[in-house]
Amino acid sequence: MKITLQRVAPAEIEARSMEIIGAELGARSFPADQLPVVKRVIHTSADFDYADNLVFSEGAVARGIAAVKGGCTIVTDTQMAWSGVNKRVLEKFGGRAVCFMSDPDVAAEAKARGETRATVSMERAAALEGSVIFAIGNAPTALVRLCELMDEGKADPALVIGVPVGFVNVVESKELLLTTAAPHIVARGRKGGSNVAAAICNALIYLASGNARE
Amino acid sequence: MKITLQRVAPAEIEARSMEIIGAELGARSFPADQLPVVKRVIHTSADFDYADNLVFSEGAVARGIAAVKGGCTIVTDTQMAWSGVNKRVLEKFGGRAVCFMSDPDVAAEAKARGETRATVSMERAAALEGSVIFAIGNAPTALVRLCELMDEGKADPALVIGVPVGFVNVVESKELLLTTAAPHIVARGRKGGSNVAAAICNALIYLASGNARE
Repeated sequence: MKITLQRVAPAEIEARSMEIIGAELGARSFPADQLPVVKRVIHTSADFDYADNLVFSEGAVARGIAAVKGGCTIVTDTQMAWSGVNKRVLEKFGGRAVCFMSDPDVAAEAKARGETRATVSMERAAALEGSVIFAIGNAPTALVRLCELMDEGKADPALVIGVPVGFVNVVESKELLLTTAAPHIVARGRKGGSNVAAAICNALIYLASGNARE
Repeated sequence: MKITLQRVAPAEIEARSMEIIGAELGARSFPADQLPVVKRVIHTSADFDYADNLVFSEGAVARGIAAVKGGCTIVTDTQMAWSGVNKRVLEKFGGRAVCFMSDPDVAAEAKARGETRATVSMERAAALEGSVIFAIGNAPTALVRLCELMDEGKADPALVIGVPVGFVNVVESKELLLTTAAPHIVARGRKGGSNVAAAICNALIYLASGNARE
């Protein structure tokens, strides 16, 4: 079999990918603010299911953009998601990305209490000063604990990106978030992941930069 | 709506997830060595498409396990995939995981040559001593360059995990790998990602530990 590679300059690969995604979404209609988020998630996963399962609270994208512009902290529940966030651009706004999952004292406390590290890391994150976007791409226990902290008045996120992935309490954790008043972007169902969490963060960061890169 | 969370201890969540995945794969039959890899990729993505699109060269899993046991280097094409690899267990075998994508000299050389950083980082990786597993979860340009380096006799991987994701030259890059003699695990089609690359590495690492964690 002869394999023919397309000649596309490195700088053009992302733009060409976004064109293809746009074409395959076809006549489907999305609110203009949500479209760059949906497209970036499909770009990172090649999975068009996200065109159906991403749900946004009213004004969620605008809130995310405003938080980034205001120099917010993005908290992730995995080092993978942290790695995927474009910190170079985020830091231009005075923001930062943090993840407490690998902190030795988080692991020690989780073990002592019989909780997941994700649960304890959300408690740490809830104590942060200033505007915080929570980006949860892995652990439903993180999302459930965050919902509890909000209910207890101990957390007030600028936005919750609720996209844990998996099979145990994942669907339920997202449905729980949807019962709260928190501004949110959620991938309903089992799908999600650290890559999806990072992609949504980056979509917001690029929109804040006035460059949707779509 | 009343949302009821399942009571599952943190240490049991992964095992319960693997049970669910096994049950939903149902009567589908996989070679025994491949099954833990397939299940771990579905675990990380909640996407059963990987039951169909993962292809393995003869003995690929055994080669990957042997490489890990022998203290190989795992090279990734993204910091995200690097973050996802279980380096704690890998290092018990004397191995290590590396990624050259963020090296300033790689970026400078890529810019000067009009190539992607991924291309240049593969050239760096090909110069590594000893047994190397290449885990490519993002950049088709990395996989294409690796195929060229193998063709030129400049790279001889223990195993190539070829799972880039996306829309431009992604399918083609994987089909190109399949024409080579390199031992491989490939996600055919558009899907893949840094999470998938890391999941396959971790499946091999856990199998090498005698703990498939399935």
